Amino acid sequence: MHERPRAQIVNVGDELTSGEVTDTNGPFMAAWLREVGIELVSLQSIRDRKEEIVEALRRAVSTAKFVLVSGGLGPTEDDRTREAIAAVAGVELVEHPEIRQKLLDFFARMGRKPLEATFRQAFFPAGATVMENPVGSAAPFAVNVADSVIIAMPGVPNELRTVFAGAVRELIQRITDGVKLEAAFDIYKAYGISESEVNEKLVDLIVEGSNPEVRLTVHDGEVWIHVSAHGKGARELSSATGRVVASRIGEFLFGQNDDTLPKAVASLLTENGLKLSVAESCTGGLVGHLLTDVPGVSASFLADVVAYSNEAKTDLLGVDAKLIAREGAVSEAVALAMAQGIRQRSKSDFAVSVTGIAGPSGGTPQKPVGLVYIGVATPQGSTAHKLQMRPPRELIKFRSAMTALNLLRKAILKHIQE
Amino acid sequence: MHERPRAQIVNVGDELTSGEVTDTNGPFMAAWLREVGIELVSLQSIRDRKEEIVEALRRAVSTAKFVLVSGGLGPTEDDRTREAIAAVAGVELVEHPEIRQKLLDFFARMGRKPLEATFRQAFFPAGATVMENPVGSAAPFAVNVADSVIIAMPGVPNELRTVFAGAVRELIQRITDGVKLEAAFDIYKAYGISESEVNEKLVDLIVEGSNPEVRLTVHDGEVWIHVSAHGKGARELSSATGRVVASRIGEFLFGQNDDTLPKAVASLLTENGLKLSVAESCTGGLVGHLLTDVPGVSASFLADVVAYSNEAKTDLLGVDAKLIAREGAVSEAVALAMAQGIRQRSKSDFAVSVTGIAGPSGGTPQKPVGLVYIGVATPQGSTAHKLQMRPPRELIKFRSAMTALNLLRKAILKHIQE
Repeated sequence: MHERPRAQIVNVGDELTSGEVTDTNGPFMAAWLREVGIELVSLQSIRDRKEEIVEALRRAVSTAKFVLVSGGLGPTEDDRTREAIAAVAGVELVEHPEIRQKLLDFFARMGRKPLEATFRQAFFPAGATVMENPVGSAAPFAVNVADSVIIAMPGVPNELRTVFAGAVRELIQRITDGVKLEAAFDIYKAYGISESEVNEKLVDLIVEGSNPEVRLTVHDGEVWIHVSAHGKGARELSSATGRVVASRIGEFLFGQNDDTLPKAVASLLTENGLKLSVAESCTGGLVGHLLTDVPGVSASFLADVVAYSNEAKTDLLGVDAKLIAREGAVSEAVALAMAQGIRQRSKSDFAVSVTGIAGPSGGTPQKPVGLVYIGVATPQGSTAHKLQMRPPRELIKFRSAMTALNLLRKAILKHIQE
Repeated sequence: MHERPRAQIVNVGDELTSGEVTDTNGPFMAAWLREVGIELVSLQSIRDRKEEIVEALRRAVSTAKFVLVSGGLGPTEDDRTREAIAAVAGVELVEHPEIRQKLLDFFARMGRKPLEATFRQAFFPAGATVMENPVGSAAPFAVNVADSVIIAMPGVPNELRTVFAGAVRELIQRITDGVKLEAAFDIYKAYGISESEVNEKLVDLIVEGSNPEVRLTVHDGEVWIHVSAHGKGARELSSATGRVVASRIGEFLFGQNDDTLPKAVASLLTENGLKLSVAESCTGGLVGHLLTDVPGVSASFLADVVAYSNEAKTDLLGVDAKLIAREGAVSEAVALAMAQGIRQRSKSDFAVSVTGIAGPSGGTPQKPVGLVYIGVATPQGSTAHKLQMRPPRELIKFRSAMTALNLLRKAILKHIQE
């Protein structure tokens, strides 16, 4: 077996060392490196100072095959990464006329006039391999220094993810060709069950250092069951354990790997030709937003009425004003009436509603902040569900929306199985 | 003027370099360091390998006064930070009997029996200053190495925050006593203007190492103008520069520091007793979601109708079906009709609408993916705005929603000034 190649990540930007921004690029790249069996030995954020960048890169190339650099490729005075890399490689910056032309085209498409500083982005260290950035003006590039490769990428998370998932990964894979990187990695995702409950169901599988290895983490209320295997037959090993996980976790499991709860709901609807509508109050549009992040959901998602005021609940959803006066806007009866109202008005098969108190104000001893009712209207009838959550506001909104989607998912499953 | 002391942060733990866990301890400490005027030059995460920890710490003490280390202080075999620090300091680990007693007491309070390995946590490098950990069993400690101080803290975020906010900060402040840590820091936030355009307006202020220093970063389409000053009169220096920035950036500036674009809109509405309603299509509820993240917006925000299907645009917003058939759902005319429709139905002062093609499918040569129309209806009349954005879908949604909020902000400002 070959030794595994090593990598270091160097993020450049004062916003990272000042605590204003949390580095999410690093963990994103690190997860992929682990998956393909490259050892990441250091993940560092440093300031926009040319000499400090040079020093960090010199150290990195002395120990790592791959040095992944993010940030500092913009057009402005404080973007100093390209000069620093040229200094480490001992070469000059040279202009790439085809990139200059691409920048001109890019600005033309945007209908904007480029400033002269923009063309700093057409300069690269001599001998660099310049790659595509389909979503921005900073092209990634790679430079060989001794036995190492420095790969520079834009720091904007969307751009980094796009170029890393595309040209940069391809480059790394081309370079490591011949090195045996056998590994398999899956994440199984559950909602509506606690980490301890999952732990209890899988306790015999969770053994440190075993192969495959099973670990649990929690992300925004989802329990993720990580299954990783390495060596010969890694894929089969991981899949076999995955089947055991699935049978033990049952209906709490909503998907795996890139699946999300909104995607699971959208797939169930679309595959079964079902239509959905939504009525929201305290979540303010978040249920609709989460669902419409899924491409193709327009085949199933008809409408979402965010009735924030009581008048809107009556005028736009047909909730009886007397019912609101008697039971309160945050009540089981109003949740049911909202779901039934939007289902009827939009002629959908399913509807889900959310009404609650997101806080920080608006709570009473009887109806405290965090009290939320969810209504689910189906072709078979309607049900309401009561939740009590803890602040802050953003978390109450998010957990309410996710719970609404999960209740909807279970209602659709039940409908299909009947 | 004294020079500002420098710091480095070194986080230890395989979970950080494997991408499973995002470092939140670093940004937490970094924000405080900035506040008191200590320069953080590097924020690094490394693996649980003794020789790698030793190497990182040796480098850190050669350039920084304060080396803040988190993680690797637990009782198990893979916790190697205390040995590594002892090696860097060139001393032995010695047992502190009073910490051994505290560990016994701690486990007694938890009703658990300590394992023998637990007492590894009673050993510290000879000469270390040992501090309190009121929420866990790993006591933080500090060791002098040459002119630097290495401070080791537990990596569990809750424990780190507690010990950092307590004994560790006190120690740092005691050591820097006499050094004037005067610093001021502000962020000015602009929308609807590119980084290059801001750069051009402020080019004379953006000089590396100047005081106050001005830097630009981009966050989700917002341009942030960072102004930082240090030394005597730092607050005044920073504010004076802030006034220059504000006058040059003008109406693109929507706020500073913790302000967000939704907050700016909500404040304008609430302070002027104005009511808002929203009609969305391709953004799917995101405009409402962003606005309702702002506490207290319920005083101004009445309703948001997400009319995803054409029928919903007609039934819920009163958009003429013939208009949709003639102009298409993604058109200036429909954007205007959506804004006017929701404004009328909800009896609001202002309304904003978004209709567009978020993709990846649904585009045509005439109406490509990323084409978005925004309608703004005000007491003075209605306007429509055309945008052309680039994929991915999530970004088209987000930029559309933010642009809608920014156009709304400018319309409200205009209304107030008239």
